[in-house]
Amino acid sequence: MSSPGEFELIAQYFARAGHPLPTRVVLGIGDDCALLQPTPGMQWAISSDMLVSGRHFFPDVSSRTLGHKALAVNLSDLAACGAKPVGFTLALSLPDADADWLREFSQGLFTLADAHDCPLVGGDTTRGPLNICITVFGEVPPGQALLRSGARAGDDIWVSGTLGDAAQALHCLWGRDELPEPEKTRARQRLEQPSPRVALGQALRGVAHAAADVSDGLLGDLGHILKASGTGAELQADVAITLIANCAYSNWASGTFDLKTGHQARDLRYVLCGGDDYELVFTALPARREAVAAAAAQSQTPVTRIGRVVAGTGVRVLGPDGQPLQGDWASFDHFKAATGSGL
Amino acid sequence: MSSPGEFELIAQYFARAGHPLPTRVVLGIGDDCALLQPTPGMQWAISSDMLVSGRHFFPDVSSRTLGHKALAVNLSDLAACGAKPVGFTLALSLPDADADWLREFSQGLFTLADAHDCPLVGGDTTRGPLNICITVFGEVPPGQALLRSGARAGDDIWVSGTLGDAAQALHCLWGRDELPEPEKTRARQRLEQPSPRVALGQALRGVAHAAADVSDGLLGDLGHILKASGTGAELQADVAITLIANCAYSNWASGTFDLKTGHQARDLRYVLCGGDDYELVFTALPARREAVAAAAAQSQTPVTRIGRVVAGTGVRVLGPDGQPLQGDWASFDHFKAATGSGL
Repeated sequence: MSSPGEFELIAQYFARAGHPLPTRVVLGIGDDCALLQPTPGMQWAISSDMLVSGRHFFPDVSSRTLGHKALAVNLSDLAACGAKPVGFTLALSLPDADADWLREFSQGLFTLADAHDCPLVGGDTTRGPLNICITVFGEVPPGQALLRSGARAGDDIWVSGTLGDAAQALHCLWGRDELPEPEKTRARQRLEQPSPRVALGQALRGVAHAAADVSDGLLGDLGHILKASGTGAELQADVAITLIANCAYSNWASGTFDLKTGHQARDLRYVLCGGDDYELVFTALPARREAVAAAAAQSQTPVTRIGRVVAGTGVRVLGPDGQPLQGDWASFDHFKAATGSGL
Repeated sequence: MSSPGEFELIAQYFARAGHPLPTRVVLGIGDDCALLQPTPGMQWAISSDMLVSGRHFFPDVSSRTLGHKALAVNLSDLAACGAKPVGFTLALSLPDADADWLREFSQGLFTLADAHDCPLVGGDTTRGPLNICITVFGEVPPGQALLRSGARAGDDIWVSGTLGDAAQALHCLWGRDELPEPEKTRARQRLEQPSPRVALGQALRGVAHAAADVSDGLLGDLGHILKASGTGAELQADVAITLIANCAYSNWASGTFDLKTGHQARDLRYVLCGGDDYELVFTALPARREAVAAAAAQSQTPVTRIGRVVAGTGVRVLGPDGQPLQGDWASFDHFKAATGSGL
């Protein structure tokens, strides 16, 4: 047991005495509640994610990357709604109060928070199994939030950045795959320190019909959009998936689509089913392709058109010959999908 | 391991299909973020509390009372600020998905939520050691939030309801004390199902100078007010503490103040140092005694004047003869104070 004051000291660690707060934060850490002044007329977007050791991260992950990721996955939810970050609360359960761990954790956390002008405004610390719960708040003009339910048949389907790195890194850590350096380090960085697409999300307001972040895998998260919108989709595996694949394993596209064995099939599943990339998948009218390109340029975020929304249900992945690929996508291992769910 | 869909089903459990949401909840559970429309001109009060098994509750506590308490401790923070509840998020880590446990938990949670018109708007579920993190949002007019820092020398000090029940129940559960029935059941109910003083908090806007909720014990939470306000306090043990003590052990006042041994000393420490009662402690000008009484009547919450704010630092507890009592208050066992801290 620690002394009664130990966790008080932890709280001081997060107080960042002297660090300036935005004026919208009327009162930060230290009272029963934080007080924030909403921007007149704006709606509030709110998301909460809980990260558990052994589920969402390896027990030996550095606390600096953990601090980054815990906030990143929440900011990614704001990005998917097109909301501008306002602030967040942190609730932290720790088996003990280790100063080195906390210093690194808070540095990872605050570096990302500062980059998005998203201050820590309050929270809680307690002793217990390692558990990190962040609740994030953002603002969005009424009617402009990007929802999962807005996709329409005929829409293009886009994704930001590249997909599959995080899943491959995970499989490497599990010893089920391998990558040469420096690709291995780069892939692991994407798993542990994802970059939420906050600027792109805001730039897509009024442009995209629907959006979600890719936390559970492209097919899964696109599936959320399709289900909420009452539509289906076709993805062009041969063209689009190559473009969004990490170069370390994009050579799958030059092979055959043997989905039962071989490197190619596994790579395709990284792209389609791997989670934790925290890119955005979104839909927009074909007439808005220039607007999508402008949003991508404005936010300095690459985007790739990978398919289209169609009438019906479900996702068909089309091979080079235009015929649907048969794949056991649903059974792909994933760290998070089997162990949690957003409310 | 459960099937991948199991935690999706849990999420559905909390969705309350068909249950009407207030119009301020633009979008509830089911998207990347919830969307809420703040009332024009109001400030937002935000608090987050994490409850861990074995720290904040016994592992065998009924999940219905746990659902109640997890929200109650957060609503109590809103009460301490004088804020009106708007909504909350729930992040829940569970070792397994037990339908009976979840049904009871959600009933305890939603019964209290409905009583305060405070809907669940989003959150997260995951597999892991039992951990409940709730973040609650409320509204308060600008400048009217009750802060810890507002106490002034000369203020009366008040508390709502009674203090000490929860601490005594805890000691009974530990086997260190005993109570006859029905007092035992009643005390345990106060420990496990506290009633946050939400109505009183709002009624005290513009009346009280400072407020906090009594979660860590009267001396501790009053201490937070005094420290934030740069003041000290004197409590009238003989008059006031009797009034706020639970009748089951209020007979201490008829005994002597032997603080080293005996029932009387222990009872006084329940009142002064026991936590988890979730009453409000607040200060107000003596000229506002009628206004305090009116706020108490309006919110149907009994309040008792127990002392006054003085210049200086710290709390002096005065005995029947007006002389300070000497007590080793700080060392009193408490479930929560030694294991956690608000940010």
